Amino acid sequence: SGTPPDGVRAAPAAVLRFRGAGVGWAARGSPQTAGARRRASVPQKLAEALSSQYGLNVFVAGLLLLLAWAVHAAGVGKRDLLCLLTALMMLQLLWMLWYVGRSYAQRRLIRPKDTQAGARWLRGSITLFAFITIILGCLKVGYFVGFSECLSATEGVFPVTHAVHTLLQVYFLWGHAKDIILSFKTLERFGVIHSVFTNLLLWANSVLNESKHQLNEHKERLITLGFGNITIVLDDHTPQCNCTPPALCSTLSHGIYYLYPFNIEYQILASTMLYVLWKNIGRRVDSMPQQKMTCRFDGVLVGAALGLVVLAATIAVVGVYMIHIGCSKSQSESALTMFYLYAIILLLLMGTAGLVGCWIYRVDEKSLDESKNPARKLDVDLLVATASGSWLLSWGSILAIACAETRPSYTWYNLPYSILVIMEKYIQNLFIIESVHQEPDGIPEDIRTLRVVTVYSGEAATLAASGLGSQGVTGNGSSATNGNLCLQQASSKEDREAGWEGVEGTARHPSFLRSGTKRRLLRNITAFLFLCNISLWIPPAFGCRPEYDNGLEEVVFGFEPWIIAVNLAMPFSIFYRMHAAASLFEVYCKI
Amino acid sequence: SGTPPDGVRAAPAAVLRFRGAGVGWAARGSPQTAGARRRASVPQKLAEALSSQYGLNVFVAGLLLLLAWAVHAAGVGKRDLLCLLTALMMLQLLWMLWYVGRSYAQRRLIRPKDTQAGARWLRGSITLFAFITIILGCLKVGYFVGFSECLSATEGVFPVTHAVHTLLQVYFLWGHAKDIILSFKTLERFGVIHSVFTNLLLWANSVLNESKHQLNEHKERLITLGFGNITIVLDDHTPQCNCTPPALCSTLSHGIYYLYPFNIEYQILASTMLYVLWKNIGRRVDSMPQQKMTCRFDGVLVGAALGLVVLAATIAVVGVYMIHIGCSKSQSESALTMFYLYAIILLLLMGTAGLVGCWIYRVDEKSLDESKNPARKLDVDLLVATASGSWLLSWGSILAIACAETRPSYTWYNLPYSILVIMEKYIQNLFIIESVHQEPDGIPEDIRTLRVVTVYSGEAATLAASGLGSQGVTGNGSSATNGNLCLQQASSKEDREAGWEGVEGTARHPSFLRSGTKRRLLRNITAFLFLCNISLWIPPAFGCRPEYDNGLEEVVFGFEPWIIAVNLAMPFSIFYRMHAAASLFEVYCKI
Repeated sequence: SGTPPDGVRAAPAAVLRFRGAGVGWAARGSPQTAGARRRASVPQKLAEALSSQYGLNVFVAGLLLLLAWAVHAAGVGKRDLLCLLTALMMLQLLWMLWYVGRSYAQRRLIRPKDTQAGARWLRGSITLFAFITIILGCLKVGYFVGFSECLSATEGVFPVTHAVHTLLQVYFLWGHAKDIILSFKTLERFGVIHSVFTNLLLWANSVLNESKHQLNEHKERLITLGFGNITIVLDDHTPQCNCTPPALCSTLSHGIYYLYPFNIEYQILASTMLYVLWKNIGRRVDSMPQQKMTCRFDGVLVGAALGLVVLAATIAVVGVYMIHIGCSKSQSESALTMFYLYAIILLLLMGTAGLVGCWIYRVDEKSLDESKNPARKLDVDLLVATASGSWLLSWGSILAIACAETRPSYTWYNLPYSILVIMEKYIQNLFIIESVHQEPDGIPEDIRTLRVVTVYSGEAATLAASGLGSQGVTGNGSSATNGNLCLQQASSKEDREAGWEGVEGTARHPSFLRSGTKRRLLRNITAFLFLCNISLWIPPAFGCRPEYDNGLEEVVFGFEPWIIAVNLAMPFSIFYRMHAAASLFEVYCKI
Repeated sequence: SGTPPDGVRAAPAAVLRFRGAGVGWAARGSPQTAGARRRASVPQKLAEALSSQYGLNVFVAGLLLLLAWAVHAAGVGKRDLLCLLTALMMLQLLWMLWYVGRSYAQRRLIRPKDTQAGARWLRGSITLFAFITIILGCLKVGYFVGFSECLSATEGVFPVTHAVHTLLQVYFLWGHAKDIILSFKTLERFGVIHSVFTNLLLWANSVLNESKHQLNEHKERLITLGFGNITIVLDDHTPQCNCTPPALCSTLSHGIYYLYPFNIEYQILASTMLYVLWKNIGRRVDSMPQQKMTCRFDGVLVGAALGLVVLAATIAVVGVYMIHIGCSKSQSESALTMFYLYAIILLLLMGTAGLVGCWIYRVDEKSLDESKNPARKLDVDLLVATASGSWLLSWGSILAIACAETRPSYTWYNLPYSILVIMEKYIQNLFIIESVHQEPDGIPEDIRTLRVVTVYSGEAATLAASGLGSQGVTGNGSSATNGNLCLQQASSKEDREAGWEGVEGTARHPSFLRSGTKRRLLRNITAFLFLCNISLWIPPAFGCRPEYDNGLEEVVFGFEPWIIAVNLAMPFSIFYRMHAAASLFEVYCKI
């Protein structure tokens, strides 16, 4: 054992190279790509920091301009804002064209894909929202033509650019959302992060427009109800000239505000997909065979029927609410009472469904899949982070009820409503997190066996070979290895024993989930929650916001602070519902 | 090859068990712990979600109460706020006592530690800040005694509780910051996350008090300078009765505000350390031997001397600024001009130093260590996130200069200053990120070889054994394996070739960093940047805030919006400097 065998002498270099790449070798696409990567001079961490800091600066600068416009800063007009957004979109367009062109030129190369990113239903929903966004763009162009006398050209250029941007971006996401870019090219990193933050800025812009609109409507209602003690200044941006056919312009203007919620969802969905693409740059993926996800719609009659009833009822309630609110004091109060009672019942149902779902999983005691998966991690983080937005509002309501001096009877419903909102999101998040981390049942038996054999034989062989390796090393005088190897051996043995326990355990609980009843129950629960979340997305997105109309919080916190808090938190609260619905759809397909 | 050998048949159970544990087996402490973990019924992901959602709700509810107090919400007094904070601290105290007691009872068990968490210098600086926090508590008690006639008892109970809390928490962090909790006990997760958010709330409370104080001072200056067009309401919380020795009370009140910045740093440092503890719960650690980090202070005379000059100059500049600002219009302007000129020169120096540091690393072309490390990841994320706070303010200044109608001469200095702030933080972040990801040179040669041999022999053996495994599987009729294995073989071969290239590469650039000159240069740069960041922490922390006094942004954005933006972004900007200094200290010790 004086001289180590050839293989061992070759090893140091191999490992240095392995550590140097930083990313895995498992899914390397082609020799060319790998070669390019090896020669890249900027390490991954540094390239990430370079591009993310650039993106954050673009975002922060854009946000400042948005803020300046929102507070009517001296010298900042809508024109400047639209110019910046148009320029950013143009830049992204150029980059996307370059990327698509380059991909086409190199289409022969085999490139690794992240099979979990950009699921088909996600791309489907983004296409739907993009379609509505393009309609919105057409309405805006119509509006511009009507008021063309007194609007600056940017107001016409912006919607046209936005439409082109939307079309190309949807094409880009269909073709490249799953890409794993391994070449570490600076241009690619910067392009993707630029796209992420451009979409986020477009999102913030839409949210701001929508908030201004909602706030104006709220102020108009307050004027109708005769609240004189609040200084009300309408923040109206109607142009100062006449539209050629006046009826058309007012229709367009109304239509625009009904389409905004879809545009908002489109922008945020696009930025999350692009963010996953960015996180995937230079990532090592396991070349695990991905089973096709097929959504079957049988056996969920009860859940779907209940969900559809909820959907219909919500639309009815929102309709009644919008008609009655702001007409007179008593009508407003009855509309609020109706909404709160309805929401309390709905949230109770949803919370119960979520609890039952969690309980089924807990009974089953299946292990969770905790492998690395940027798309899933982002989904979970977004769920919790955006729920915080609505938790803020709910805690505000609770605090307001606790501190208010006079409490009209209808405001009491606000307390259970707010508590239930907090509880329901808490439970639903747990249910979704547990669901998306379940190992899919759909993996065919032979692939399972294969995976098992590969891992096991690898482990056994490592043992054998490390015995060999340690010979080589002990020749070099290091004795620490032996301890290390003993530990490995011991733990491996323990694994095997535990394995036998596991087999007995599985035998004792004969696969619980696969038994039809439990699975059908879970599918029904998921379908019901999916439709409920879609339903609960509608009220705040289309202007049914009891946080405004309730009045209690405004009295306690003051008009301005509460309005600012609501306008900052509400977009996240709305996004939560749509995002939860999307996650539940994924869960549904998985079960 | 009809029936697989015995080992293969045993495998499925072993693997199920392996996947089931979800966390690694490498660092399992003792059979007892492992057993407890295996029987834990709540999977890690779920336990994380359970506790983090609880923590977020506590935080959000506390923030709402802070907001309510800040905007003088009807019915919310300082008493309610202090009651909540005291209750949260009490709960944390109970939990810490329980944890410390249990750890003492189980002190015989070998528990894994995260050697990278809770570095000694970190615990040292937290002790220093905690000491000042306790002095602050004493001053507050003195203030309470002086005004005891008209202050509620909570104002006396709060500082006492806070002092006890601080003492125990520092003891706790000294003893347990490196713990890796493997038992997945719900109580532990909830306790740690409760501590994280309690400290964050205490931080927010201190920041709010400090901001109110700064804002009052600013308003007083504006009154002195005769700005009548802004409606100025002093937000003063001086009690309505007389203090027994009046001179004492005013001294105490002044002293309190000079100590707040240290208290703020203490709270945020404590919460980051606790957060790392929370992230480490149930984590798998590589049992890598950690070399002792020893900081030597030789050969950095130039960097340290330059840094100390900067420190002294900054204190002088801040002193002059504070005396001159608000006295008269011309004196204010000259103070601002002086500050901007000084800051521009300093930032230019720092930017250059950072660029040189980055260039040295780039020339060296060493690979980066990208292994998992929650403490480091948090550090890097915090650097970029908190820098965004000051980027927001800088972009605000740039926008204000671009849009302002009249620009007094001294405001022009604001433009290069703001641009340099953005650039300097961008460069400095890159330098720190690259530094903390460097593989430490200190690992002895034999451990390197050992690591190399272990990895390599494992890989080769996997190849051999997977050939064996595939025989068994092809017997079952699956042919996908062969492709997979070929890929593995191919990539492994490629690794080996690449490895040889790597060896040649290393030979060509003979270890650049270890050559004394480069290393000494890096150490000097780091020492200089460390002292510069400490210097730049002083001005905003002690009330030298040109963003207020400059006046330009207030005119463009309006008083209220700009003040809100500054008060939200400034705490992060201040924290950035202290955090960057801490990171640079770590880097210094590493080089």
